[in-house]
Amino acid sequence: MPELRRGPIRNQWVIIAPDRAKRPSDYDARAAEPDEQEPIHCPFCSGNETMTPPEIARTNGSDGRWQVRVVPNKFPALQDYAELSRDGVEGGFDRMNGEGAHEVVIETPDHNRELPDLPAEQVKRVIDMYIARLSGLMQNPRLRHIVLFKNHGKEAGASLLHPHSQIIAVPIVPRDVRDVLRIAKEYYKRRERCLFCDVMLGEMRNGERIIDETDGYAAWAPYDSRFPFEVLISPQAHCCDFTQLTEEQRWGLARTLKRTLQRLRNLLGDIPYNLILQTSPNPTEQPGKPEHWKTLQYDYHWRIEILPRLTRVAGFEWGTGSYVNPIPPERAAEYLREAPVSDLD
Amino acid sequence: MPELRRGPIRNQWVIIAPDRAKRPSDYDARAAEPDEQEPIHCPFCSGNETMTPPEIARTNGSDGRWQVRVVPNKFPALQDYAELSRDGVEGGFDRMNGEGAHEVVIETPDHNRELPDLPAEQVKRVIDMYIARLSGLMQNPRLRHIVLFKNHGKEAGASLLHPHSQIIAVPIVPRDVRDVLRIAKEYYKRRERCLFCDVMLGEMRNGERIIDETDGYAAWAPYDSRFPFEVLISPQAHCCDFTQLTEEQRWGLARTLKRTLQRLRNLLGDIPYNLILQTSPNPTEQPGKPEHWKTLQYDYHWRIEILPRLTRVAGFEWGTGSYVNPIPPERAAEYLREAPVSDLD
Repeated sequence: MPELRRGPIRNQWVIIAPDRAKRPSDYDARAAEPDEQEPIHCPFCSGNETMTPPEIARTNGSDGRWQVRVVPNKFPALQDYAELSRDGVEGGFDRMNGEGAHEVVIETPDHNRELPDLPAEQVKRVIDMYIARLSGLMQNPRLRHIVLFKNHGKEAGASLLHPHSQIIAVPIVPRDVRDVLRIAKEYYKRRERCLFCDVMLGEMRNGERIIDETDGYAAWAPYDSRFPFEVLISPQAHCCDFTQLTEEQRWGLARTLKRTLQRLRNLLGDIPYNLILQTSPNPTEQPGKPEHWKTLQYDYHWRIEILPRLTRVAGFEWGTGSYVNPIPPERAAEYLREAPVSDLD
Repeated sequence: MPELRRGPIRNQWVIIAPDRAKRPSDYDARAAEPDEQEPIHCPFCSGNETMTPPEIARTNGSDGRWQVRVVPNKFPALQDYAELSRDGVEGGFDRMNGEGAHEVVIETPDHNRELPDLPAEQVKRVIDMYIARLSGLMQNPRLRHIVLFKNHGKEAGASLLHPHSQIIAVPIVPRDVRDVLRIAKEYYKRRERCLFCDVMLGEMRNGERIIDETDGYAAWAPYDSRFPFEVLISPQAHCCDFTQLTEEQRWGLARTLKRTLQRLRNLLGDIPYNLILQTSPNPTEQPGKPEHWKTLQYDYHWRIEILPRLTRVAGFEWGTGSYVNPIPPERAAEYLREAPVSDLD
């Protein structure tokens, strides 16, 4: 049974999920390579629906066949226990049972078409499904934060090739999210302006790190990019909660996302990347949750991070939390701005 | 010219080192694979000394040949500029020039013998060299922190196969180090005890996560291990600064390190790992440095982290700073305790 643990030195929650464990002999350097599945053996392909655990949600097309499908992760990091139990463990340690959720969003029935290849209409359907599942999970007040992410390519952690994203809901607000929330709150308190709006507007005025600014979004290479060709996408209209997107904003995001991923692929080839949605922690009223939660709508701003995995993270980064990036973001933005974009529909 | 950058959202320093940059076309998924060098083309092998930049230090054997050698990194993340310049950049950004050092410690003239294969005497020589270089770099008061690490195997970021470690000295205290320093100071202030001593003694009393406790060191699988088979090694006698080790403590560490790496290899095979020395920031008197630096000797405790790289870090981890670990540390410790250790000299 999975559990969450926190120690007094690092003060960060770790999910210990032994259901995913193998014996030590299963760990050799090759074990992490994903299988090069053929569609016939792929659990996410159309026709193989019985190879996944029972479906959580689906979007059907006018022909009655599914277009987007959500299933539980077969090796979940966390599960629904209907109750959250916390305790202190001798030695100054904290522990919780592994209450949470771990879902997979299958983005298309087609094994070989990635987000940048799909019609904008289909990308919009994927976004609709993201919002439906996030909204659904937020009904559970024990789930304090929901992380939506996509691992593309084996170097980025993908174990199945078929295009998919994942959702992990956790009963805590993880360290990096909490740190940014705190910084944003302090900023707002002093200035009565949203930190993220200020950074985005500064980038739009300056222009040298901007990649795209149409459809109501801005995409830029952050000043402090940790990875080569890192991209941040954020709505130009202030909004803390991804699930609050209007129809028009969803279409705008579908086009912006497609365009950005096309630029990356046309410039760099089919590179591995992680895509992460950073949105407000679950705003649902929760017992014991601090009051300042209520200011999220003013001081927080959702955004999507795209982290190409072209450099290996090694000892220096693990030991410090600092990164070495060989591509200045100004140069990355210049290359990406000029990269060709194919048709947008 | 490399520079350090910090943005207002993440508030972490990033090193932008464009000297290491390639053109976008050089980045394909294969680009990160290290060459399978033959000794004849290996710049770290005996006889190829002219293939490295001019030597910084060496240890000679009684036959006059070198046994350990230190050279500058050929693609340094940071360089010595004799002056640190700081400025604020419009948009709330911070910048510094890339003042620092980036050195490589060649652990043996022998291409194919890793730390666990070397005689304890040679491991001790490597430790002596670590201490000599750290002490040397600490003379520069602009270098606030020195990170010593080893990347073993390409999955862990090694680009050369020949056994070596790296030293990066930076003009800042990186985020993760600063966070742990702050936590340790708060702990000490309240209890007048060292946090790290308390955690280690708790592990030694409890025993279920202990792997080794001889030669004046303890090695254990931390309660909140982020990675499968993660190991922490710490001196049983309180000490904040690695460079203060006595002769006896250096021998003890040589044996403990060799034994621990043998256990890992005998259990798991030749797996990729990162090894990181976490030691006190540069204690040298520095203008502008806060007073509380002076309490380091009470509230900080040096240690070595060994992080096997058997799982891939992906979107969830990058988006949160939380980790999913499939091996409970109690089980990892049990396996490692029972793993065979070969001869120790």
